[in-house]
Amino acid sequence: MHKIDMNQVKNIVTDIVSKHTVENVAFVGCGASKAELYPGKYFLDHNAKKLRAYHFTANEFNTDTPAWLDEHTVVITASLGGTTPETVKANSVAKAAGATVVSVTHTPGSPLTKEADYVIVHGFEADYAAKLEKMGYVMALALELQQQTEGCPVYEDMLIGYDNIFEMAENSAQSARKAAKEFAVAYKDAPVIYFMSSGASAEVAYSSSICLTLEMQWINSGSFHSGEFFHGPFEIVEKGVPFVLLMNEGQTRPVDARALTFLHRFDALTTVIDAKDYGLTNAVPANVATYFNPLLHTAVFRVYAEEISYIRQHPLTKRRYMWKLEY
Amino acid sequence: MHKIDMNQVKNIVTDIVSKHTVENVAFVGCGASKAELYPGKYFLDHNAKKLRAYHFTANEFNTDTPAWLDEHTVVITASLGGTTPETVKANSVAKAAGATVVSVTHTPGSPLTKEADYVIVHGFEADYAAKLEKMGYVMALALELQQQTEGCPVYEDMLIGYDNIFEMAENSAQSARKAAKEFAVAYKDAPVIYFMSSGASAEVAYSSSICLTLEMQWINSGSFHSGEFFHGPFEIVEKGVPFVLLMNEGQTRPVDARALTFLHRFDALTTVIDAKDYGLTNAVPANVATYFNPLLHTAVFRVYAEEISYIRQHPLTKRRYMWKLEY
Repeated sequence: MHKIDMNQVKNIVTDIVSKHTVENVAFVGCGASKAELYPGKYFLDHNAKKLRAYHFTANEFNTDTPAWLDEHTVVITASLGGTTPETVKANSVAKAAGATVVSVTHTPGSPLTKEADYVIVHGFEADYAAKLEKMGYVMALALELQQQTEGCPVYEDMLIGYDNIFEMAENSAQSARKAAKEFAVAYKDAPVIYFMSSGASAEVAYSSSICLTLEMQWINSGSFHSGEFFHGPFEIVEKGVPFVLLMNEGQTRPVDARALTFLHRFDALTTVIDAKDYGLTNAVPANVATYFNPLLHTAVFRVYAEEISYIRQHPLTKRRYMWKLEY
Repeated sequence: MHKIDMNQVKNIVTDIVSKHTVENVAFVGCGASKAELYPGKYFLDHNAKKLRAYHFTANEFNTDTPAWLDEHTVVITASLGGTTPETVKANSVAKAAGATVVSVTHTPGSPLTKEADYVIVHGFEADYAAKLEKMGYVMALALELQQQTEGCPVYEDMLIGYDNIFEMAENSAQSARKAAKEFAVAYKDAPVIYFMSSGASAEVAYSSSICLTLEMQWINSGSFHSGEFFHGPFEIVEKGVPFVLLMNEGQTRPVDARALTFLHRFDALTTVIDAKDYGLTNAVPANVATYFNPLLHTAVFRVYAEEISYIRQHPLTKRRYMWKLEY
């Protein structure tokens, strides 16, 4: 059964807190990696009573560096290939201010690892679960940082969740192929696709929009929090307007459910990836299920993205600019 | 000359800190009001060394209420009409947990004022500057909370900025009509409009997209941080794809400038509202100019939104659903 190495995370945090009083945790990255940091930030935002947590796109962190950045700060950076220039620079900015840097990357020896105090290497290619390791490690760092600084009442429940989520997400992705093919048929000619979610999955909606749709399919797209839907975006809804809702199990489910009711009422073209349908709470304790939604949604929507790429004969790796020119 | 009442803000904060040790500040609202809270959050995120700052859409705050919400928390809520149900409920959630509530609204006696410990009533109709009062008051609350709890090295500079920004923004809006008419002609048939900004203005791009474009013009739209542009969204750029860039004066200007260079290079349909063109640093001290960008951008883009509404004969007040049905 697929798992991440929780002992490695625990040992890194134990070492950090033996050297520094940790007051701040800054999650810094770009694009999909920035979005994959969000569940860690979300976890601390809702649970930590003392730690301060921040989430920056790397170039904002580099150009408008916060006044509090110092030796009491842990900066967690992530980049799949470990070459994202802004994120590599963020490590330098953090180190220059005396902060501790933990970098999470798929690529040992990559530029991102050079100035990092600690490096976690995650999988990617093996299967759908492997694509969740980056996000999983980052949230595990958040969990351990809270546990080892101020204590975390849901710590044990989170560990149970980690024991089961990867296999559960893999199985969910494997079972999603038929629904994904239906999605691909229905959305292949969509002039625009909107994405919504809430809670810890809010930035899965964001990365599904900016990466999988805008970047990898060149389809127009926007995303927003399900709780914001009724405060602006819902006026775009008419019969057939394409939406994808990543529906959460847990605290914010009523927020998603209200948006879904509206989409159905006005016959929007609606695709729902519902964590409840996949049985999230059969795999993780109900009181912490909300934090594991993004892993499930990421695994399942990956299959949807694959299928729309096949039917449109537009590979997910096809680019106009990236890898082709300097910018 | 138009100003907001800084003494009122100061007195409210003085009263709060005489009663409670303030550790957390939560900014809670929906839609445009949520976006107008962001500069206050951004200010604390970059300056406060002890205070913890949070920003929630109201229904997430209500359904996944953070564990730390208590008597050491100030919850700042905002709603123009003071009737937004989720935000009114957020006041109840905050009060039930023992937090102090400051509500910023245009409407005295509105539901939002009922459970608030302190109410600030802001202008709106008078002119473009009046439409900035809500955002201005919220950031002023952030500034005073930092100053009166841990001290704020840029406090005096911020006060100078507040002395001048409203008149400067009003004059900027008044001078933007010609450029706004050109924007309206060029974008009136746009199938989609993308918005970008960075720094304290990041959520002006967001609200310009979800409110002024999706909600009030029924034009497809997406928004993202300029620093994220190269990590996904830029692949949608081709000749003629419509973008609006709210360009900042201050720390994150290089982030915006890099995106602008790319838009020009590939002949995107590009509109820039540049705080430098309007002389932001003639009005506010350069070291704090970055925090005042959102007031300038909001005032100027309002004129652009008016002009596109005129040419499309689609009033900004026209709705499909809001004010018309229950949802």
